[in-house]
Amino acid sequence: MKLRDVGEFGLIARIARRAQRKGRAGAGVVLGIGDDAAVLRLRGGEDLVSSCDAAVENVHFRWRTASPRIIGRRAFVAAVSDLAAMGARPIGWTLAIAAPPALDLARVQGCVDGMLAEATAVACPLVGGNVTRARETSFTLCVLGAAKRGRALRRDGARPGDRVFVTGVLGRAAFERARAEQGGARERYVPPSRLGAGRALSGLRGVGACIDLSDGLLADLRHVLSASGTAAEIDPARLPLPRGFVRACARLGRNPLRLALGGGEDYELLFTLGSSAPGVSALERRLGAPVTEIGRIVAGRGVRGLAARGFTHF
Amino acid sequence: MKLRDVGEFGLIARIARRAQRKGRAGAGVVLGIGDDAAVLRLRGGEDLVSSCDAAVENVHFRWRTASPRIIGRRAFVAAVSDLAAMGARPIGWTLAIAAPPALDLARVQGCVDGMLAEATAVACPLVGGNVTRARETSFTLCVLGAAKRGRALRRDGARPGDRVFVTGVLGRAAFERARAEQGGARERYVPPSRLGAGRALSGLRGVGACIDLSDGLLADLRHVLSASGTAAEIDPARLPLPRGFVRACARLGRNPLRLALGGGEDYELLFTLGSSAPGVSALERRLGAPVTEIGRIVAGRGVRGLAARGFTHF
Repeated sequence: MKLRDVGEFGLIARIARRAQRKGRAGAGVVLGIGDDAAVLRLRGGEDLVSSCDAAVENVHFRWRTASPRIIGRRAFVAAVSDLAAMGARPIGWTLAIAAPPALDLARVQGCVDGMLAEATAVACPLVGGNVTRARETSFTLCVLGAAKRGRALRRDGARPGDRVFVTGVLGRAAFERARAEQGGARERYVPPSRLGAGRALSGLRGVGACIDLSDGLLADLRHVLSASGTAAEIDPARLPLPRGFVRACARLGRNPLRLALGGGEDYELLFTLGSSAPGVSALERRLGAPVTEIGRIVAGRGVRGLAARGFTHF
Repeated sequence: MKLRDVGEFGLIARIARRAQRKGRAGAGVVLGIGDDAAVLRLRGGEDLVSSCDAAVENVHFRWRTASPRIIGRRAFVAAVSDLAAMGARPIGWTLAIAAPPALDLARVQGCVDGMLAEATAVACPLVGGNVTRARETSFTLCVLGAAKRGRALRRDGARPGDRVFVTGVLGRAAFERARAEQGGARERYVPPSRLGAGRALSGLRGVGACIDLSDGLLADLRHVLSASGTAAEIDPARLPLPRGFVRACARLGRNPLRLALGGGEDYELLFTLGSSAPGVSALERRLGAPVTEIGRIVAGRGVRGLAARGFTHF
């Protein structure tokens, strides 16, 4: 069945049913899908946190190299990752779909199901959106969150003397993309959500800057340094590159360091902590995620110890 | 100059500068453009209102038939109209841009300037967004607003006995589109923002349902009736069709009633009020907009007195 067979309102009705099956609307949802806008309620002492992200056919995903469900799951994780980077809890999201009328309905529904699966896992209700025809398929996700007043994590808080950390491992998304481009296998990797880690971070004393790794460690670190007016010394030997990953890169003829530094779409958190920070194992317990110390913030400009390029559009 | 000449971050920097020139961030903006997400603060006793809307090349606009500035102004008015329909005050908006790298930078900037002009006029600061390449140009606008708790206007509040009203005039957007399609002139019409009217309505006793007219009066009225479980009797002779509009339709060979009922993109408000509602002239003073009574809500299903079709996608 094609999208044109169910029409704009048919698609919206199907998505609304799927969203409802995934459990009741969140406690903070006063009015969900179906009106001109959604109405959400924050708790006392909270600020609203808002971000949007897009997944475009042949730019962020290819029907050929990943299943609709994986495409959807990755799109949601990518969007909600910005809330993690702010230390916010998710309160809802909206989905704007643009797609050709001749597109298979199953593809759109598969993507939406993937998004809803990830959204449900982090208790983030779908509260609205938009549907339009277009020549190519794209999804624009706007995520809404709440952070304690004055506790949202920012990019501009890195100070000389801070230690630099990342969660998880780096380069896996880029590796799978490279493998899929070489015809090896469909992409199946879905980055973990670091919402819990971000919220735990926002409660830590001495937290400096935080950003999520969407463009690649080097490009995103530069955003932090530029916003904070500082430099960083990074030790490439300390980057979290599992041995299995390094071996797989060798088999594929790829440089693991390049994938880790410039690959992008890891959606791990990069953050800085003052010298009074807890040790790595205490941090891992607090954040509920693997943590690696990769360097430190120093006075000056730019990144020392590394050379590679992030991913930019255009 | 083309989009690819300034790149993703160059475009973002230009938009951020333009947004800042348009005046300081709103009082409720804790953190605006430039971080992973924006942080906004509501006032006490308010709920968050959230909606998104898209403007896609060759679906919602054509470069040939309207200037970039008009395209942008219309896109913003269309998006913020959903806040008007909820009786909310705007607190911020995000803009997701998808565009081909070879697109003229001036076109994108013209659109953004048009959006910013309308946003500034209603004190709604641009707080974030996303930029990606794509084969065709589209803008996805997410508007954030605040409504007094329990006072947001909804579609499902129409009750038998309610009187049905619309603000402004109907069919002008459809008329200009038809004229542009027939090669007559570029579209210049920008619908008015009904934010003030929506907020005034949300404070009125006896207010029933409210919706903004995006798909055409008939389609949008049906949304209200379906959500409210009621019917409506509409008097076509009372629809707000100015004489000049009727004459212009005659010259163009178009049926003014058809444009008014099914044309869409008027972004006027359709609302219902209980029998204790003030008279039309008192209403116009309260709402700060022209108001016309066009019928009433009755028990049953569907629309009586009219027959035409709204505009749907696919």
